[in-house]
Amino acid sequence: MIQYHSINGQLVPAASAALQVNDLSILRGYGIFDFFGVLSGVPLFFDDYLDRFFRSAGILGLKLPFDRPQVIGAVHDVIRANDMSDGYIRLEVTGGYSPDGYKPGTANWMVLGAHPPKPSDKQYVDGIHLMLYPHQRELPEAKSINYLTGIFLLPMLAEKGADAVLYHDNGWVRESDRSNFFIVTRAGVLVTPREKILAGITRKKVLDLAGPLMATEIREIAVEELKEAEEAFITSTIKGVLPVSRIDNRPVGDGRPGPVSRDLGLRFSELTRNYILQTTQV
Amino acid sequence: MIQYHSINGQLVPAASAALQVNDLSILRGYGIFDFFGVLSGVPLFFDDYLDRFFRSAGILGLKLPFDRPQVIGAVHDVIRANDMSDGYIRLEVTGGYSPDGYKPGTANWMVLGAHPPKPSDKQYVDGIHLMLYPHQRELPEAKSINYLTGIFLLPMLAEKGADAVLYHDNGWVRESDRSNFFIVTRAGVLVTPREKILAGITRKKVLDLAGPLMATEIREIAVEELKEAEEAFITSTIKGVLPVSRIDNRPVGDGRPGPVSRDLGLRFSELTRNYILQTTQV
Repeated sequence: MIQYHSINGQLVPAASAALQVNDLSILRGYGIFDFFGVLSGVPLFFDDYLDRFFRSAGILGLKLPFDRPQVIGAVHDVIRANDMSDGYIRLEVTGGYSPDGYKPGTANWMVLGAHPPKPSDKQYVDGIHLMLYPHQRELPEAKSINYLTGIFLLPMLAEKGADAVLYHDNGWVRESDRSNFFIVTRAGVLVTPREKILAGITRKKVLDLAGPLMATEIREIAVEELKEAEEAFITSTIKGVLPVSRIDNRPVGDGRPGPVSRDLGLRFSELTRNYILQTTQV
Repeated sequence: MIQYHSINGQLVPAASAALQVNDLSILRGYGIFDFFGVLSGVPLFFDDYLDRFFRSAGILGLKLPFDRPQVIGAVHDVIRANDMSDGYIRLEVTGGYSPDGYKPGTANWMVLGAHPPKPSDKQYVDGIHLMLYPHQRELPEAKSINYLTGIFLLPMLAEKGADAVLYHDNGWVRESDRSNFFIVTRAGVLVTPREKILAGITRKKVLDLAGPLMATEIREIAVEELKEAEEAFITSTIKGVLPVSRIDNRPVGDGRPGPVSRDLGLRFSELTRNYILQTTQV
C-alpha cells in the first residue's frame, strides 16, 4: 500500500496528492512520464530511465523547475517513506498550470509509488494474444501520457479475447500499447522495429543480451512477415519478456512460447538480479 | 476572475479545485471536454454543446455518474457562484480514479469557469496566418483532451510567425488545432471538410447561416486546392469566424479577408445575440 507520493519535490500523503484542475495534463493531456521497478529498495536501471525521462521532457519542450539530483532525491524519498522493498515508481512531469488553458506553464512534477498488476504465470507459460490495429502513436519517441487510442480499445480487446494491441501503420509493425515487440524468424534472427516507436529500456537490455547469442536486426517488420515468424514476444518494465502465442487468432509458430523467448526471459531476470547485487555492493 | 468551479457536482473554491494524481487524465491523458460561451448569464447554444459532450463521452466509453439535468444544474451553479455575465464554461469528464493506472474507473466531472484570451481586433481585420502540418487527430469525432501535437507545435508556430496550425493527412485538409476550416472557391462556393474532424458547433451554425446565401459543400479539400481559394477562415467557440489571410506564407486570394468571411462573421454575431434575446424572453 502506497502511503506517500512526492509532488514538486515535497512528500505528501497519497490521499492528498493532487493537481489543480488548470494543470495541462488535466486540460490538454500534455505531459510525459517514466516508469521503473524497485527491487530490494533499489531503482532498477535507474540511469537509463532517468535519461529517457529527461529526453521525453525535452521533446515536449517542458520547462523543468528541477534537475537530475532533485529527481533522484525525490525517488529515494518515496522509496523510504513507503518502506518500499519491491514495487514501481512513476515519474511524471506535466505542462504545469497553464496561463490560458493551452500554453504550458512551469512544469509540475511527481514521483508516485505504485504496485501495478503483473501478467499471470499462465500468460508467461501459454503466451498472450495480440490484436492488430492500425495506429501510429503521436510523437512516439517521447513517453507522453497520451494513451487515448490504447484505452479506447480496451473493450474491443476484451470482446476479442486479446490481451494487448499490436499497432501497425502503412503495413509496418510498430509496438504494443505499452510494450515493444519482437519476432524470431525461421532463420533464427531476432528482429524488432527500429522507427516511430518508444525505445523501451527492457527492449534495449534484451537486445544487449541477445547480441552475443544470435543474429539480431533492428529494422522495419512488415505485417505480412508475422505469419512466417517462429516466435514473438513483447517487452516492458512490468512484463519483462512476455511470449506472444497468437496474433489476431493466428498462432505464432506452433502456437506455444518458444525457446528464444524463454531463454531471453530468464537472462533478463538474471540481469535484473545482478544489477541489484552490484548496486547494493557498491 | 473565476472564484468557483464545480467538481463532481459540488461547488468548490477555484484554488482548491483539484483531482488526485491517480485520475486517468493525469496518468494517461484520458478524458473529454466541451467548451461554450456565456453571454448575459446565458449558456450559448447550450443544447448543441451538451449533445456533443455526451456524444464524446460515449465514444470514449466513459462510465458517467451524472445525467444531463445534473450537468445543466452544475453549469448554472458555476455561472451564479461567479456572478458570470460574460465568460466561458468548460465541461470535462475524465477516465476517473483508475484501479490499476490504465483502466478507467468511475468518471470524474468538472464544470470550470474561464475567461480565455480572444483573438485581437487586428487579427479579425488583417486575417491570421496558418502553418500546414501533416497530422490526423486520434478519434477526431470525440472532443478528447489530447492536444499533444498541437501544444508540441507552439514553438514552431512562433518561429514561423504563424497563429495556428492547419492539419492535413494524405493530401487532405482536416482542421486547425482548435478550430474548423473553411474556404471560399473562385466559383463562390463555401467548402469545409467532411471527415475525420471534430464537428464544431460554430461550424454547424455557419453552415446553417450560409445555406440560404450561397452554394455550400461539405467534402474533402485537397491541400492543392488551397492555392486556388478566394477566401479562407476558421471557426471556433472563442474565435467565431476568423479570416485566414496566409497559409504557409502564401496569400489566400488577394491576401486580405474577403466579403464572405466578413458577412458570415457578422451574421454569426447576430445569431448569437438573437439566441440570447430569445432565451431570456422565454
